[in-house]
Amino acid sequence: MAKSMTLLWGAGSSPCWRVMITLEEKKLQGYKHKLLSFEKEEHKSQEVLEINPRGQLPAFKHGDNIINESTGACLYLENQFKSQGNKLIPDNPAAQALMYQRMMEGLTLIEKLNLVVFYDLVAPEGERHDSAEKRNKENLVAELQLWESYLGNVAAGSYLAGAFSLADVVVFPNIAYAFHYGLSAERYPKMAKYYSLLKDRPSIKTTWPPQWYQIAQRSEALKDI
Amino acid sequence: MAKSMTLLWGAGSSPCWRVMITLEEKKLQGYKHKLLSFEKEEHKSQEVLEINPRGQLPAFKHGDNIINESTGACLYLENQFKSQGNKLIPDNPAAQALMYQRMMEGLTLIEKLNLVVFYDLVAPEGERHDSAEKRNKENLVAELQLWESYLGNVAAGSYLAGAFSLADVVVFPNIAYAFHYGLSAERYPKMAKYYSLLKDRPSIKTTWPPQWYQIAQRSEALKDI
Repeated sequence: MAKSMTLLWGAGSSPCWRVMITLEEKKLQGYKHKLLSFEKEEHKSQEVLEINPRGQLPAFKHGDNIINESTGACLYLENQFKSQGNKLIPDNPAAQALMYQRMMEGLTLIEKLNLVVFYDLVAPEGERHDSAEKRNKENLVAELQLWESYLGNVAAGSYLAGAFSLADVVVFPNIAYAFHYGLSAERYPKMAKYYSLLKDRPSIKTTWPPQWYQIAQRSEALKDI
Repeated sequence: MAKSMTLLWGAGSSPCWRVMITLEEKKLQGYKHKLLSFEKEEHKSQEVLEINPRGQLPAFKHGDNIINESTGACLYLENQFKSQGNKLIPDNPAAQALMYQRMMEGLTLIEKLNLVVFYDLVAPEGERHDSAEKRNKENLVAELQLWESYLGNVAAGSYLAGAFSLADVVVFPNIAYAFHYGLSAERYPKMAKYYSLLKDRPSIKTTWPPQWYQIAQRSEALKDI
């Protein structure tokens, strides 16, 4: 099955990482994959555009079925391979509601992280304002405090919605990325604990962004957050 | 079942509308609901914050299960009430991949619409730039052309992913909103045709934003797009 899958990905991209973790969890190793460089604009290459007209990574195919939206790809893979590997959508209604809630909130978390880490890319020169930068940082602090409160409410050793689920698949890469960009473990102890709990999980360790081994911390963009 | 559900909503909000369409499609009429006013900042009221700490609408509860993220709520309701009402996630793998893909892309469409329609809210005075406004409009045109091409590829009388599905639940309110803000049916004929196909569907007609009956077209913000 995995042999009929192709993933074009970029290292360090949360959306790509989500799909890779899901493929591992569902025991779909052996898929074709190719690492492309954002720096070299390879995500705008013909090879990508043929699968993903948005020129974004991931670009993912299963046979003739194309599903590039990473959260959609995770949902699709769980649905198609329900009984294979780990179950990623809980049956229990309360856990399921919490899982979908946190999974979708994870998209807001990454958006707010990006607005701070990549402000210079989001706002071209001449359109940058200290007031906007300050507001983006305040919004990120509020967002991170929300996640601290969520993680403060989960049982010890538990994941975002009980057992490991698609909520963790979507959210963990965002949290790893926050620490990679200098987030303070002292100021965000619950997130730091969650990070420690998950970083050595096989599906996550195997798919760890390769360049993060060389540069343990990319920058201090989030040091003061 | 529906009696144990509570929805706090705002009129004209795509996220709220999605949940309401899903409730209709799943034959979950009879849920408790309350229309709140964004203008009066009622989405920041204690009543909302108790369900949704983000102070956003929708705020949705099913018994003790809280699921405020609208796309998550749609997925949850479909999963909890699979055999009730209309099936909203197709079993066929090709249709299912396309459904998840379009559903998640729908979130990009609304984001790009909001950046143009609500530019003055997104960028406070003193942070507005003609260059940003121009770029937002160009990005929206590219996005709308993508949807024209998607809709150009579906079979006549068909929905975004074959039968009516969560893709349509998420995307239709965005397209209705685009036309409400003056989008040209001449320039976007496939979207106009899709709009006509769906606007009288019972689940959509019943949940049509009440104030849109009074003001058929809110503004001409998208007239030149």
